[in-house]
Amino acid sequence: MAARKHNIDRSRESYDAATSALKRALGSRVRTDEESLFRASFDGSKLCYFPDAVIAVRAERDIGTVLALANKHGVPVTVRGGGTSLTGSGSPIRGGWVLDVSALDSIVIYEREGMAEVGVGAKISAIQKAAEDAGWYYPPDPSSKDHSTIGGNIACNAGGMHGAKYGVTRDFVLALTGFLPTGERVKWGGRFKKFACGYNLRDLWIGSEGTLGVVTSAVLKLVPKPEAKWTLVAAFAEEAVALGAVQALIGRRLLPSILEFLDRHSVQCAERATGRSLFPEQRGKPLLLVEIDGTAGEVAAKQQDVLAWAAEHAVASAEARTSEEAEKLWEVRRKCSGAMFELGDAKLNEDVVVPLFSQVAFAGFLDELQRSSRLPIATFGHAGDGNFHVNIMYHRDDAAESKRAEKVVQRLMRKVVALGGTITGEHGIGLAKTPFLRLDRSEAEVRAMLAIKHALDPRGIMNPGKIFEVFEVWKHRPIKIRLPWDHR
Amino acid sequence: MAARKHNIDRSRESYDAATSALKRALGSRVRTDEESLFRASFDGSKLCYFPDAVIAVRAERDIGTVLALANKHGVPVTVRGGGTSLTGSGSPIRGGWVLDVSALDSIVIYEREGMAEVGVGAKISAIQKAAEDAGWYYPPDPSSKDHSTIGGNIACNAGGMHGAKYGVTRDFVLALTGFLPTGERVKWGGRFKKFACGYNLRDLWIGSEGTLGVVTSAVLKLVPKPEAKWTLVAAFAEEAVALGAVQALIGRRLLPSILEFLDRHSVQCAERATGRSLFPEQRGKPLLLVEIDGTAGEVAAKQQDVLAWAAEHAVASAEARTSEEAEKLWEVRRKCSGAMFELGDAKLNEDVVVPLFSQVAFAGFLDELQRSSRLPIATFGHAGDGNFHVNIMYHRDDAAESKRAEKVVQRLMRKVVALGGTITGEHGIGLAKTPFLRLDRSEAEVRAMLAIKHALDPRGIMNPGKIFEVFEVWKHRPIKIRLPWDHR
Repeated sequence: MAARKHNIDRSRESYDAATSALKRALGSRVRTDEESLFRASFDGSKLCYFPDAVIAVRAERDIGTVLALANKHGVPVTVRGGGTSLTGSGSPIRGGWVLDVSALDSIVIYEREGMAEVGVGAKISAIQKAAEDAGWYYPPDPSSKDHSTIGGNIACNAGGMHGAKYGVTRDFVLALTGFLPTGERVKWGGRFKKFACGYNLRDLWIGSEGTLGVVTSAVLKLVPKPEAKWTLVAAFAEEAVALGAVQALIGRRLLPSILEFLDRHSVQCAERATGRSLFPEQRGKPLLLVEIDGTAGEVAAKQQDVLAWAAEHAVASAEARTSEEAEKLWEVRRKCSGAMFELGDAKLNEDVVVPLFSQVAFAGFLDELQRSSRLPIATFGHAGDGNFHVNIMYHRDDAAESKRAEKVVQRLMRKVVALGGTITGEHGIGLAKTPFLRLDRSEAEVRAMLAIKHALDPRGIMNPGKIFEVFEVWKHRPIKIRLPWDHR
Repeated sequence: MAARKHNIDRSRESYDAATSALKRALGSRVRTDEESLFRASFDGSKLCYFPDAVIAVRAERDIGTVLALANKHGVPVTVRGGGTSLTGSGSPIRGGWVLDVSALDSIVIYEREGMAEVGVGAKISAIQKAAEDAGWYYPPDPSSKDHSTIGGNIACNAGGMHGAKYGVTRDFVLALTGFLPTGERVKWGGRFKKFACGYNLRDLWIGSEGTLGVVTSAVLKLVPKPEAKWTLVAAFAEEAVALGAVQALIGRRLLPSILEFLDRHSVQCAERATGRSLFPEQRGKPLLLVEIDGTAGEVAAKQQDVLAWAAEHAVASAEARTSEEAEKLWEVRRKCSGAMFELGDAKLNEDVVVPLFSQVAFAGFLDELQRSSRLPIATFGHAGDGNFHVNIMYHRDDAAESKRAEKVVQRLMRKVVALGGTITGEHGIGLAKTPFLRLDRSEAEVRAMLAIKHALDPRGIMNPGKIFEVFEVWKHRPIKIRLPWDHR
């Protein structure tokens, strides 16, 4: 494979001497062939930077060895699980070594405790299946769940559709075992639900995108598997009405297990792709997908409440009586994202968070943004916790469109912060959102974060270049490759 | 009031010049009269150290002023809310200034969002009442809830009885506003449920016992108020059977909203104090108190499950059909702690956490500890999340008993760690648990914590002497004073 052709930016130090020492220590677990280096050179962002070596980690202690050498020689270390990051968080932008931890994929369910102990490379869908087989449930479900690992989910505090009721990855991590950047083994938390013993580095690690240490395993909290669920899809006259209805639903003291929003553009993309409309009389109208779960009695009671709510706010609605019917309702949500590529060959997918109280104003802003930018902007996402995915479509080779897309992102990020929200809910900063970090966080806040970074990683070896240094993603061309989880 | 007589340790610097500058800046909000200094000199631990001044904070900006001056002059700053800490976390051991934030007690409920925004001085019971009046629910309920503030609860990540099902303070804090030790205003999180934008200092602050910054307000997550609840108390042949039954109950994929354990010594104390026994045929047997909550249908279904479980494991049980009946069942739990003072005039109350899988072994250890130490040791607590309160009773003026009590604590802490647990679940380290921190946390872990402390608080002004420096609490005599929340 002519991988080297993808090496579009190698303007950085080489670490040949250190890599030789690493090979002496770890033998064949250290890979430097072109194919291995290429595979580790990019993540879901497709921003490609070759590392000097890839370490196929077989045991926890390998990581201690790698970090001790990396510290000694000042070699950048980037941890890699499923490589599904959309922000470039897993791209080894400064070269050095990639720690491939995907083989650490053990899963143990503690049935009588409602906990799981998993290796950092365990896939989310595998964890969910093991939990459900034991009558328990692990709710976080990023759309990458068949490919992404718990390590990656911890690195960016991944969420998914169940956030509003159940919470995100952070809410399910009881303990993390791993290594400080200096190579010392540490454990934060344990097989228990509470602790007050010194500083909480567990939650500091979660969401730090592999810049403060290396996780090797996690203890996860599970919840009882819901006995029943029920799904409803409702169409609304316009986006502002749908998002007003979201607040009205939560105002009923009712937390659906799922509450997904699709704006008219997302719905229209899905309708064109499938050739079907859920509501032929209300074609192309914004939708909310509502799922209620719990015991059978609980679902039955809340169902009445949701139907009354739909009658008050929606122009049409349909409920699923069977799981096959529910599948059919969900098709619109599953198909919309891939279908957007008919609107452009490039997509900027921004996972902003907008507080409930600002969501109606946000709908108005998106309308205006679309009109003034003359770019297709399709928005869908987790309305229950305000985590919207705003997809700005454009044609990469059209310089004017690219410029407008960049401007749209800038305006979007500023508006989200002005509305009391935040620029990323579940993807993290990585490289892609670095230009906006300081819109969201003050200089004092960023200084405090950097003080912690320097305190824990004095040589700056862990995932350098991420979060804090500005990287203008629109100036970099992703490689052309189809990944297993690509929608199109 | 002859407060100065309590000034048992003033072997530290004076900060008179700095205090004069502070008075010029904040006027009458700075108190240096004996009465004010005395009131701020101790917390629930009754370890008394006079500060140089107390600042009765009226507005957030006062805190910025105080911290800027404290940093300039190197003055220790201890934050004070309700002063209910049991570990000495709120005791100004190095003198300096006490920031009294109890007046920042605003409470706003966002009804349509299921959130509360509260000043750091808001009392827990006031927050709960405001939430419940609006049809929402704030579950963390430390027994100090009528006196303790959300700030104190955040400082030690307080829990209470609802931890196993609902979680602890950390699980309900969405955002914190406050000041870095350097006096810069910061905000971590917002009026939303998820973020992935840089490092999570929110959760680093939670549980850091006022050593990393000053919180001024918090956004809290609320959950829908449960529609129904049902209570059962069950007696067991012995402690190991009761704790085995805890695991069996959770193994049924059933999370009670409350699952409290009382060993025979706790039960006997309560029985002697009240002159009543819940089960006259099974007098003095260990108990579990179980509460189920949820929708009416959910509670009815789970109730059957709990009754079947009790029939299998307990020697007697009684359910409450009304809230008055439930009150009667709860009396044993409310009375046991105060009643222990008939067994000694001094109590070491250790809030250890023991994982579910080790609880039966822990019961055996406690038996042996009691026998070999010849001291009364009464244990009760939150079995659902393994957070037991082990109460070692002795007579302070009996040198031999005091020595044995100290040894018991040492053995207890070592055992808890060996069983996979942790030395504190909700009280924090403060002063009282500093001798045991390094049993629980490794040198590398403590070094990482201290690196963060130095990074964020370079002059070391925030609550110095706590968590990391060894303080042998048994060598210090608490002052004799009755506090509003004292059980006896």
